[in-house]
Amino acid sequence: MLGNLHPLTQQSVLDQMSKKPKLAILDTMNFWMDIAMDDLKAVIKNIDVITINDEEARQLSGEYSLVNAAKKIHEMGPKYVVIKKGEHGALLFSEGNMFYAPALPLAEVFDPTGAGDTFAGGFAGYIAKTGNISFENMKKAVIYGSALASFCVEKFGTERMLTLTDKEIFERLQQFKDLTQFDIEIN
Amino acid sequence: MLGNLHPLTQQSVLDQMSKKPKLAILDTMNFWMDIAMDDLKAVIKNIDVITINDEEARQLSGEYSLVNAAKKIHEMGPKYVVIKKGEHGALLFSEGNMFYAPALPLAEVFDPTGAGDTFAGGFAGYIAKTGNISFENMKKAVIYGSALASFCVEKFGTERMLTLTDKEIFERLQQFKDLTQFDIEIN
Repeated sequence: MLGNLHPLTQQSVLDQMSKKPKLAILDTMNFWMDIAMDDLKAVIKNIDVITINDEEARQLSGEYSLVNAAKKIHEMGPKYVVIKKGEHGALLFSEGNMFYAPALPLAEVFDPTGAGDTFAGGFAGYIAKTGNISFENMKKAVIYGSALASFCVEKFGTERMLTLTDKEIFERLQQFKDLTQFDIEIN
Repeated sequence: MLGNLHPLTQQSVLDQMSKKPKLAILDTMNFWMDIAMDDLKAVIKNIDVITINDEEARQLSGEYSLVNAAKKIHEMGPKYVVIKKGEHGALLFSEGNMFYAPALPLAEVFDPTGAGDTFAGGFAGYIAKTGNISFENMKKAVIYGSALASFCVEKFGTERMLTLTDKEIFERLQQFKDLTQFDIEIN
């Protein structure tokens, strides 16, 4: 998991690994697109998953539609593209497949700082723990990351994460299920 | 289904019905909130479902959080509150239950005119056809309305709706399932 740093630093981390990782995830932001786009494009070629927000996906691809933006970014290298839309959730794209995880609508957002990083941490942690990089499992990782991020915004900075229990996470995952699952007859 | 007209006209339609309908749905907009808020609040007391967009939900309730806005609007009368968020989907609230239907991410939106009305028509049509006003069935109605709205924006005005086939609708519903359904273990 390459955190949001200068793309040359991210590439240097990859270069120091004697064995190619099973899955490399890269997080980045508009700042690096503004001052080091060529370096960013070079490292993007070498990773499997990119996580960016909607505006950054548009800047990186030059496409307004997120569907078209994801297509262009796939062509730059990453097999998986995760586009974070803040309070509107996150989209996962891979090989013509698309998955949408909503953000949990909350009565109060105390402090959104760190929500994106918490999402990325939960996403990467779920994949690392399960060791499964199929699209089906990556959908679950997006839900897991979204659930963790929904806790992060409840308190200041990382405060809420320090006291988080498994039970609370399981209850929140159930809320995500209740929020999104339906069973419509198709015939 | 009371379309988006002056609230006094909406109330007059209700008054002309000799038998109270099983379910009354009301659509409205910011314009009526600006010029006829008292009349709007009066008719809202007499209906079961309100469909409005996110900004209108905030204006009507005075609450920024959509969760809190829905709670306030429930207290004004409607048992069901549907909040439309355009390209970000729609939320359904009722008695502490919450459901989120995404909008289908599209490569191209040709003309968004009529998407909200198509959503309302598909929503009301699904409920009328199934005759079931449970929360579970209303979730399906929100998905059905979202699927129809995703066609509406593909062409100008109502053009796309005129040629729409059952097969196309079923395929689109399947896309909504693929887009949102997941199976994460909770234990």
